[in-house]
Amino acid sequence: MRPSGRQPDALRPVTFELEVNRYAEGSCLVRFGHTAVLCTASVEEQTPSWLRGSGKGWVTAEYGMLPRATHTRGEREAAKGKQSGRTQEIQRLIGRALRAVTDLTGFGERQIKIDCDVIQADGGTRTAAITGGWVALHLAFRHMQDLGALKRMPLTDHVAAISAGLCGGLPCLDLDYDEDSTAEADANFVLTGAGDLVEVQATAERGAFPRATLDRLLDLAAAGTGQLVALQKQVLGL
Amino acid sequence: MRPSGRQPDALRPVTFELEVNRYAEGSCLVRFGHTAVLCTASVEEQTPSWLRGSGKGWVTAEYGMLPRATHTRGEREAAKGKQSGRTQEIQRLIGRALRAVTDLTGFGERQIKIDCDVIQADGGTRTAAITGGWVALHLAFRHMQDLGALKRMPLTDHVAAISAGLCGGLPCLDLDYDEDSTAEADANFVLTGAGDLVEVQATAERGAFPRATLDRLLDLAAAGTGQLVALQKQVLGL
Amino acid sequence: MRPSGRQPDALRPVTFELEVNRYAEGSCLVRFGHTAVLCTASVEEQTPSWLRGSGKGWVTAEYGMLPRATHTRGEREAAKGKQSGRTQEIQRLIGRALRAVTDLTGFGERQIKIDCDVIQADGGTRTAAITGGWVALHLAFRHMQDLGALKRMPLTDHVAAISAGLCGGLPCLDLDYDEDSTAEADANFVLTGAGDLVEVQATAERGAFPRATLDRLLDLAAAGTGQLVALQKQVLGL
Amino acid sequence: MRPSGRQPDALRPVTFELEVNRYAEGSCLVRFGHTAVLCTASVEEQTPSWLRGSGKGWVTAEYGMLPRATHTRGEREAAKGKQSGRTQEIQRLIGRALRAVTDLTGFGERQIKIDCDVIQADGGTRTAAITGGWVALHLAFRHMQDLGALKRMPLTDHVAAISAGLCGGLPCLDLDYDEDSTAEADANFVLTGAGDLVEVQATAERGAFPRATLDRLLDLAAAGTGQLVALQKQVLGL
Amino acid sequence: MRPSGRQPDALRPVTFELEVNRYAEGSCLVRFGHTAVLCTASVEEQTPSWLRGSGKGWVTAEYGMLPRATHTRGEREAAKGKQSGRTQEIQRLIGRALRAVTDLTGFGERQIKIDCDVIQADGGTRTAAITGGWVALHLAFRHMQDLGALKRMPLTDHVAAISAGLCGGLPCLDLDYDEDSTAEADANFVLTGAGDLVEVQATAERGAFPRATLDRLLDLAAAGTGQLVALQKQVLGL
Amino acid sequence: MRPSGRQPDALRPVTFELEVNRYAEGSCLVRFGHTAVLCTASVEEQTPSWLRGSGKGWVTAEYGMLPRATHTRGEREAAKGKQSGRTQEIQRLIGRALRAVTDLTGFGERQIKIDCDVIQADGGTRTAAITGGWVALHLAFRHMQDLGALKRMPLTDHVAAISAGLCGGLPCLDLDYDEDSTAEADANFVLTGAGDLVEVQATAERGAFPRATLDRLLDLAAAGTGQLVALQKQVLGL
Repeated sequence: MRPSGRQPDALRPVTFELEVNRYAEGSCLVRFGHTAVLCTASVEEQTPSWLRGSGKGWVTAEYGMLPRATHTRGEREAAKGKQSGRTQEIQRLIGRALRAVTDLTGFGERQIKIDCDVIQADGGTRTAAITGGWVALHLAFRHMQDLGALKRMPLTDHVAAISAGLCGGLPCLDLDYDEDSTAEADANFVLTGAGDLVEVQATAERGAFPRATLDRLLDLAAAGTGQLVALQKQVLGL
Repeated sequence: MRPSGRQPDALRPVTFELEVNRYAEGSCLVRFGHTAVLCTASVEEQTPSWLRGSGKGWVTAEYGMLPRATHTRGEREAAKGKQSGRTQEIQRLIGRALRAVTDLTGFGERQIKIDCDVIQADGGTRTAAITGGWVALHLAFRHMQDLGALKRMPLTDHVAAISAGLCGGLPCLDLDYDEDSTAEADANFVLTGAGDLVEVQATAERGAFPRATLDRLLDLAAAGTGQLVALQKQVLGL
Repeated sequence: MRPSGRQPDALRPVTFELEVNRYAEGSCLVRFGHTAVLCTASVEEQTPSWLRGSGKGWVTAEYGMLPRATHTRGEREAAKGKQSGRTQEIQRLIGRALRAVTDLTGFGERQIKIDCDVIQADGGTRTAAITGGWVALHLAFRHMQDLGALKRMPLTDHVAAISAGLCGGLPCLDLDYDEDSTAEADANFVLTGAGDLVEVQATAERGAFPRATLDRLLDLAAAGTGQLVALQKQVLGL
Repeated sequence: MRPSGRQPDALRPVTFELEVNRYAEGSCLVRFGHTAVLCTASVEEQTPSWLRGSGKGWVTAEYGMLPRATHTRGEREAAKGKQSGRTQEIQRLIGRALRAVTDLTGFGERQIKIDCDVIQADGGTRTAAITGGWVALHLAFRHMQDLGALKRMPLTDHVAAISAGLCGGLPCLDLDYDEDSTAEADANFVLTGAGDLVEVQATAERGAFPRATLDRLLDLAAAGTGQLVALQKQVLGL
Repeated sequence: MRPSGRQPDALRPVTFELEVNRYAEGSCLVRFGHTAVLCTASVEEQTPSWLRGSGKGWVTAEYGMLPRATHTRGEREAAKGKQSGRTQEIQRLIGRALRAVTDLTGFGERQIKIDCDVIQADGGTRTAAITGGWVALHLAFRHMQDLGALKRMPLTDHVAAISAGLCGGLPCLDLDYDEDSTAEADANFVLTGAGDLVEVQATAERGAFPRATLDRLLDLAAAGTGQLVALQKQVLGL
Repeated sequence: MRPSGRQPDALRPVTFELEVNRYAEGSCLVRFGHTAVLCTASVEEQTPSWLRGSGKGWVTAEYGMLPRATHTRGEREAAKGKQSGRTQEIQRLIGRALRAVTDLTGFGERQIKIDCDVIQADGGTRTAAITGGWVALHLAFRHMQDLGALKRMPLTDHVAAISAGLCGGLPCLDLDYDEDSTAEADANFVLTGAGDLVEVQATAERGAFPRATLDRLLDLAAAGTGQLVALQKQVLGL
């Protein structure tokens, strides 16, 4: 039995609150249970210098956590004067995931910055950030279409992410903090709407795990991201 | 006439949403119109090293702004590797304001950190942060009382803050971004529930202003903080 | 009675030693009692990038303290690798004060940097820096006039600054370190030669203070800055 | 056909040169083709502060690249003043991989630091670092045994790592730089001597890839790490 | 003929103004012509951690330059966030020079910090700093003797420093900025009162120079430091 | 007798291994006994901004030490976030030494960066770096000649460096770590192939030393650099 009473293959309640920021071109407050991430998409009229003249745009992401998003207060990264290795790892992952389903030639020489700020953390912040970040990005592109700046939606597919792990020998989907901090193996999966893989990150937390475990976690994740994509469609009226 | 249609002495709609964070000992999302600041109070069981053995605790504050809190996206301070002078000025101000109404001998050798993170900015973020920070601090002390860790509330009074400025020759209360960016003079006032002054910061933005203007701005602020204190009482059931 | 034996409304002896630096376009060593600040004005032939093409120049300030300017040695900011919040607050204040009386369209697309370095500190370093910084700036403009680079003096008025505070219940002018560190309220005022306000910063150091106290401190400061402006005129032969 | 003429499932020539550093408790220069990584294991007589008194030791890793390890010179991280996100990601990965096969209760309250410095880079630096880092760690433990400081070898198994990717539609093992920079999918696998998984990191570089591809890459990696473990045994005389 | 009209072996006018800082245990404003360096000696009651329990004290130095000490304004190191390589080189040199004539067992487990801040620079700032730093250090020790904290003066000899260089083929003593910036060879010498060498730093600025040149520069420096030591004695009444 | 059994005027075994890096335009692994420094020369097609349009190129150097190059592991400078004063001093010295024998007008508006990374340290790392750096630079220029990018070799002479010191009263050449850490005086000399001086850095480590000692150390160094130059010629076939 999971601490939350959930079935092994059950997601936490997932919600998307759209356009929560009056300035951003697209924004979304995504919740996976008690985890809440504010995602904003900001359109800048200049592509990075290394893409100037290429006709291509760029999508990138930044990630942060409010100091008291966590059970005990963490030090503020701006005060420490640098972003942790974990923060950098996560923001690089979000950027790669979103670019995998974006046609970079499809929105001019612009840059879109996705800011994912964790308001409250209970496990799964990076998967919520990718899943909500895609919604914010979609809204920003739609906004550009409404303004006539784009003819076609440059997103080639959905992207969604979910964690899965081995908890007390049981493969489980969408770990919360209690499960995550005690799991024997912990994995994050990023999949497209078509069910293809964009990123797999699986880590043994105690010793190692057999290949069959990876297969089982991937089964759970494929089903879970399918549900997330359905929710993205529903909330965006697609 | 003000751009917002408000009377010169009118506050924007002010709301406090309590206990918005499930981990913080006290928390509050305060809104002054479109300005929204998330305030959390975190109780740490150790006073700063320079107070050890004194029997005193400490209250301090940190301030931050999400990158897209503003009309155009600002660079993330954690990514830049340092907090701006403006950020440091504001967080020092918040800390001083809250300590002015706190009995530092009244909650043991603990430290309370007030994090004020601006979710959306439309002028007046520092005044909202002080006013909401006091609510979060009050809730944290109440939480400690509920746990039996404190006998008496260590807050000696309310504290609230409001801006006022000279806009097109007209003294106005609680400037929004449009007014703030074009005002001839701009001031922030921090007052106690008893109506005494904790901090006055008045700046001429174009040339200088006569002493009578300062008097008039202070009249507005005294009335405005009075209303804010009444709202604090109402929302906390005091 | 004040520790120094001064009357409540008495300044410390104030002196300006002009052209103390053979390279700077204008320079001044200002002393308020034992406080000594070396102010230099450096003219750079380029306005900041955000003003290029506007026809406007810029005036900015930097502030520093020698490590042993103080009773006990402070750590060198260059060695620590960052300027403190206090340093940044003060240098922003100096810049605003000087720009308030400068016609930015009156000296071409140039930038003037005022460096205020505290050689010895005994309270009131920021007010001495503003008052002496104005003298250095005036000398730099005069130097440009002598070279034929300017037709008219771009300063529209004097600016001077002084502190006042509540010490043992007594409102006093121009606090030295002993008074400053024990005052119940502490304020800095920046006024023009015409007696208008450029900046007011008043802070309660213990609890709060009534509005009447602010009025009384402002009375003292208005008289004090009047004397400082008279001294500026005298030393510059205006 | 691969640019190097290798078969899809062929490793590059792999060599380990042992004890290349006269001071380190264990050291190894590992080469995967033209990629060369110098791995040293340094034993420190203190465990990290958060493990003091627990009876446990710790194993951690740092990673760096000489500026001209690469085709074009990269900026020196010490000169830039910070380690890149990529560097931090890799050194965290190396540390996790080695800890997965180390009994942290088996060598006292010590810390072992594995430094992996890339002398020359041609793809696969992180996999070479893990594979050679394990050899350096083994040598350091053996050195401690020789000194009588340890009774038993605290390593519970081998660990080795290899990359695999999809190049022009063909799943290939152990990509060199030319392949790595053009692959459609790119993965790194860390496996134990027993063939269990410690870490899987798979990334789509263009679009996404089907689950069957991941399976095929994992087949290649399992065979490849098997060969690497055999080489580790041979060179260490196990 | 030298630009200044000086003979090749002539020092610039050298003066020492003693006790210019009311807080420092010893202080001295030293001038070598237009070069002016403010030297303060601060006594701290704790030796560095690596000397605790050894019975030894330590002497160290820090060096800085005011931004407008130079012909054109230099960037403030505190604002840049780091000390230049040149600054670090010079402050390490000053510390070594002073420790060479200090009995570190002779003043208890204390640390003396010599701050050398260049008020105005016209060549020779490091040699002025060493020569004036010794005076400040002597005064600080004398101050400790006056307080009864020391029985004997822990300085074993004088130390003084001077530059010499090859200017248009002519060996010259004590270069000013004009000479220094065009010299073919440039050297700094630190000597004791007894005429022994503490430090020699000679650098070819264009090509290389014969050994005979070094000998001639050393002749000049030996005579020059002899004069500086005589001045140190005179000003201190030794 | 020296700890190593060497005669006072004997170098350690010195070897140069050429072209050890497949990407660098020139490279060399130089060993002075147990000291090993990897030197690479990287040709960049742009001169620094302050030389653009002058027709001149630039030669500069960077220096680093692997963490376990030393007896006990040193902290990684990239992890600390800054280069030590010692590192900066050494890399400035290497750059000056190489420029002294380079015709900066002789290789176009390019920049050549010499990276000197210490693989193992046993005293004399800076002298090995200069001596090996010259070889790497020569190879890079030869490479440019082979490509037809240069007509003439822009090096005007050899440059080599060696240490000498006073150990137990005995002047000795090329100190190893044991000698270096206990020497009474320690010097580094940089000489050209013609035997002229490029740089002299002599430091008293305990008290001071007479001028005759400097002469004797210089005698040793002149002979030692003569041998190093002969080895440079031999290994390069000059």
